[in-house]
Amino acid sequence: MDRLLIKNAVLDGRRTDIYVENGKIVSVGNCTQFEADKTIDANGMRALPGFVNMHTHAAMTLMRGVEEDLPLAAWLKRIWKIEESLDEESIYWGTRLACLEMLKSGTTAFNDQYWMPDVAVKAVNDSGLRSWNSYVCMDHGSPERAARERDELEQTYEKSREWGPMCSFTVGCHSTYEVSREMLEWCRDFAVKYGLKLHIHVSETRAEVENCRSRYGMSPVKYLDSLGMLGPHLIAAHTLWLDEEDVELLGKHHVNVVHNINSNLKIASGYRFLYNELAAAGANVTLGTDGCASSNNLDMLEAMKTAAMVQKAWRADPKVMPLNELLDIATINGAKALGLESGRIEAGKQADILLVNVRKSTFVPEINFLSNFVYSGHSDAIDTVICAGRVLMEGRRVKDEDEILDSAGKAARVLLEKSGIVLKTY
Amino acid sequence: MDRLLIKNAVLDGRRTDIYVENGKIVSVGNCTQFEADKTIDANGMRALPGFVNMHTHAAMTLMRGVEEDLPLAAWLKRIWKIEESLDEESIYWGTRLACLEMLKSGTTAFNDQYWMPDVAVKAVNDSGLRSWNSYVCMDHGSPERAARERDELEQTYEKSREWGPMCSFTVGCHSTYEVSREMLEWCRDFAVKYGLKLHIHVSETRAEVENCRSRYGMSPVKYLDSLGMLGPHLIAAHTLWLDEEDVELLGKHHVNVVHNINSNLKIASGYRFLYNELAAAGANVTLGTDGCASSNNLDMLEAMKTAAMVQKAWRADPKVMPLNELLDIATINGAKALGLESGRIEAGKQADILLVNVRKSTFVPEINFLSNFVYSGHSDAIDTVICAGRVLMEGRRVKDEDEILDSAGKAARVLLEKSGIVLKTY
Repeated sequence: MDRLLIKNAVLDGRRTDIYVENGKIVSVGNCTQFEADKTIDANGMRALPGFVNMHTHAAMTLMRGVEEDLPLAAWLKRIWKIEESLDEESIYWGTRLACLEMLKSGTTAFNDQYWMPDVAVKAVNDSGLRSWNSYVCMDHGSPERAARERDELEQTYEKSREWGPMCSFTVGCHSTYEVSREMLEWCRDFAVKYGLKLHIHVSETRAEVENCRSRYGMSPVKYLDSLGMLGPHLIAAHTLWLDEEDVELLGKHHVNVVHNINSNLKIASGYRFLYNELAAAGANVTLGTDGCASSNNLDMLEAMKTAAMVQKAWRADPKVMPLNELLDIATINGAKALGLESGRIEAGKQADILLVNVRKSTFVPEINFLSNFVYSGHSDAIDTVICAGRVLMEGRRVKDEDEILDSAGKAARVLLEKSGIVLKTY
Repeated sequence: MDRLLIKNAVLDGRRTDIYVENGKIVSVGNCTQFEADKTIDANGMRALPGFVNMHTHAAMTLMRGVEEDLPLAAWLKRIWKIEESLDEESIYWGTRLACLEMLKSGTTAFNDQYWMPDVAVKAVNDSGLRSWNSYVCMDHGSPERAARERDELEQTYEKSREWGPMCSFTVGCHSTYEVSREMLEWCRDFAVKYGLKLHIHVSETRAEVENCRSRYGMSPVKYLDSLGMLGPHLIAAHTLWLDEEDVELLGKHHVNVVHNINSNLKIASGYRFLYNELAAAGANVTLGTDGCASSNNLDMLEAMKTAAMVQKAWRADPKVMPLNELLDIATINGAKALGLESGRIEAGKQADILLVNVRKSTFVPEINFLSNFVYSGHSDAIDTVICAGRVLMEGRRVKDEDEILDSAGKAARVLLEKSGIVLKTY
């Protein structure tokens, strides 16, 4: 039995202890009566639920910075060229590097869509986080490729029974433009049959929406609706270019939408995410970082700040996306989308907990902790990360950090050389 | 004689030493022939020029987070109420806290506009950075107040001869709406007479521009031009709401404009800063954070990232504001505006130098250092800060850090209590 006692943390402004057994929070309050295998004296650090990163391509850490300040087409060409050379080594170390980075910035669960999920899951299990991993279908309208994808997806789903309790399988459809109608329908049925989440990119760029309208006479959201694919099991990444009817549909079907502000800004997809409208309509609004090839890091705290600031600016309204909602978007809303009992620090919830060190200039004065954490601080204030009751980072030290930095660096060099990319002097 | 030798730094992709004497860089390259009083083995850390924060209200650190997610009018009311209670203690410790935070995030010089510059300068000198400090004129059209302001400004300028080599006096006019035409003209003449910089808020909000048009029949920029105030000595903060003619005027007169993206976003002033147009017209584009009451921190690295990302997004062009230009904006352009010989690491320049530790997940892989630093990393990667050849931070430790955190925290509590503000539980 794993028993963890966190003493002297501050939760919602009050000093408290938190007692954890077998990965779950048992008691919050005075916990001196409990015996533990490990005790942490939080010494006034603030306790918060771990972040849930709702849209990543984890192993793309290895392509971080490969091209900057380039138009989208040239950038994509580079990325696709590199992806042809991906192998088990690069997927494993790219995902380990991603997990290290997520721990350093307070993420305890993430929803991934990338190649070789079997290999990625090994890296996640070696890191201790929780993940949801897609097999990603992309048939480009080829029936042969679709048949292969169906086989591979089924096989991966079979194997996912051995992924262990921290990793879950999801059905991944890349998008309405990379996946045929038949394949989408097959994925829909597979997800429903096995009670799985379905993870897809939706309305990320204006061009995607325009192309969908020319091809199917409707927006991507309405196209998915016409296929009966909208529902609370759907995780729709981006949903940036929506009309009123799209918003209504996403709300009515309680779809989980993922805002990826940093990626949207950096590759210039757009910024007018309809947060107020989506939340009011009934959609579950969550937050993600996207992969490091587009947004460069996996830092959810930074994503929170940017999301709120840009939302306030384009609406010309400083009241939008207030701090309490922002924290929910980054924690409990993501947990809800994944069916994970976390996102709050209370008895019965999963013990996915951050301890934040406020002994920094950015936390002075002590007026509003959450404002200081989100708007003033950085993720380096996160001292300790606990996932499923296991302490994965303490004093900002993560196990195997040196090995991960070295091996991921080496894997990236090999991958880029294979892809014929000559690195400039660093 | 102060002699500093930095060994094994990496500059522009090459290993190098940097030798500093009496605050200036003497040699870059192999410097083993030089004897030094202090030697730093940079051990592969990247060397960069220190950041120049071109628009701050430093002591407002003490009001960080005082109201969040509020409309501008309610927020301003709170801030003004607090400012009535400012005293030497709060200005000193607020500025010390600001300097600590700037050192932690790589700023070596800043351009400040706030109350009691005499007191602020003491804090700057105790911290070791460089500052330019305004006496801020705000007469609200009252001739009595204008007379007092003129006296005070002249006295402060007299006293500024004792500020020492690291701090310089500038003439501060709050804005065209808080300062009368007569006072602006007097400030113009004073700045010209003594060869001083003139620091002013210009076209920060749409309302400001509209009000100026109703009052004077022209935009703030054209109004300043009509008073003969535009020139390379002018530091115009914000310049966010400009028309074509404004851009042309600011360019033609080589005005220094300061982009404060985080403040503009958070209080929802706007985001369409005309970077391309201003730079092409001939204005000197620089970067600032504004005060912590509006933008919550003084982190120039974060400001760089946000500025570039938002610029790319609203223009729908990922090529805009590329990394090399972004670094110039945050360093040498600011130095130029202030007449400071820094912003490049080369012989003859001031030794204002950052050493960046790249042994972090966010710096893997080593494809593009500047992209990793700006787009992936955070200021916690800055290990060492040198200003005028003095090592002010090493291993992220700053002298007197504990005392500053405690005393600034206490000063903030006293200040807020005096202002009748009851703090919620932190």
